[in-house]
Amino acid sequence: MNKKITIEKKVLSENDRLAAGIRRKLSEKKIVALNLVSSPGSGKTSLLEKTLKALNGKLNMALIAGDVQTENDADRLKKAGGKIVRPVITGGACHLDAKMITRVLDELDLDEVDILFIENVGNLVCPSSYDLGEDMKVVLISTTEGDDKPLKYPSMFRRSSVLIVNKTDLLGLSNFDIEQVKKNARTINAELIVFELSCLKETGLEAWYEWLKDRVTAKKGR
Amino acid sequence: MNKKITIEKKVLSENDRLAAGIRRKLSEKKIVALNLVSSPGSGKTSLLEKTLKALNGKLNMALIAGDVQTENDADRLKKAGGKIVRPVITGGACHLDAKMITRVLDELDLDEVDILFIENVGNLVCPSSYDLGEDMKVVLISTTEGDDKPLKYPSMFRRSSVLIVNKTDLLGLSNFDIEQVKKNARTINAELIVFELSCLKETGLEAWYEWLKDRVTAKKGR
Repeated sequence: MNKKITIEKKVLSENDRLAAGIRRKLSEKKIVALNLVSSPGSGKTSLLEKTLKALNGKLNMALIAGDVQTENDADRLKKAGGKIVRPVITGGACHLDAKMITRVLDELDLDEVDILFIENVGNLVCPSSYDLGEDMKVVLISTTEGDDKPLKYPSMFRRSSVLIVNKTDLLGLSNFDIEQVKKNARTINAELIVFELSCLKETGLEAWYEWLKDRVTAKKGR
Repeated sequence: MNKKITIEKKVLSENDRLAAGIRRKLSEKKIVALNLVSSPGSGKTSLLEKTLKALNGKLNMALIAGDVQTENDADRLKKAGGKIVRPVITGGACHLDAKMITRVLDELDLDEVDILFIENVGNLVCPSSYDLGEDMKVVLISTTEGDDKPLKYPSMFRRSSVLIVNKTDLLGLSNFDIEQVKKNARTINAELIVFELSCLKETGLEAWYEWLKDRVTAKKGR
């Protein structure tokens, strides 16, 4: 078992080295990079679809869509108007790593890009350990998942800067208490920026869009 | 990277060895063992709570509740009337493994047990690789997660024998198509036994209970 831990440490330290390279590259080009993480089905792709439709023409957005299998998410994002969309199929692996991202970025023309969204594999555990060179992790939770999830999967909430509570249109139809989930999340990470929204009903999205535009403005130093 | 794969293979083969031991032990005692897997928040704990309440006195049930952190699930199951409930905190690990189960089983008196439920960590990827000595994996999906999940996380659906579609009370409130999810799941695994139910509204549970009782009867050879 010790041998396994040693190897894991080596893998993570090699990942960190590559992530630092990605961060340097994106920083030189003044690109905001967000790593979206959540359980399967919390609405990462839906949120990106809405964001593409709302901000196309206002921001230049690139997207990397990670999946264990299928290019479903990348196809959805292209249909939603994504001009720079790249799928990454992990082939069974439970997370994206910096090596996969490095390879994709080498193929992309980043000169005009303002913001890079990386949609991670749907998994609330493993992706928390892998730095992808992003500015921030954005963790999504949907109102149907149970409000104790931040306590049960603390690492992801600790390492995220933004919490998006999606599917607020379904509030009241289960035992999910939105105040409790925010309280639980802030017990783990007091600094979390929180957005409450419904991708399906298109409510609460404006604040998210404004925040994205502000991030880009701050990064460009305009 | 090859070294990593070699170590992973060793870990999995050691896991398989231990799982075979568990299977032998449970088989000798004629215990039905089910490994419940799903995304976080699909309703594994809720289903077990309902099952405990409905079948207490009819079946002798033991439960092992795996979590990355907290004993929340185990506490819920004890409150729901579980007499033999053991928490396993993986301490960051994204799945239960056979070593953890072996250790817990050594402490349990299994003589009177008819059925053992193992509630895995909420993760639709990693637990699919780890045999816990169970008779079957039971995969849950909720109607709010998206009907393409079986295609995106095929390994879990391939290795499961039962599919439970939970939260049917929320059908029609999202774009989830229950016929499509069943079709997608059966594309991956034509043999899947499917139950459609709502733990919250307590509908569709009877068929699940009957199936459990039948499994126990068949195992005992009564």
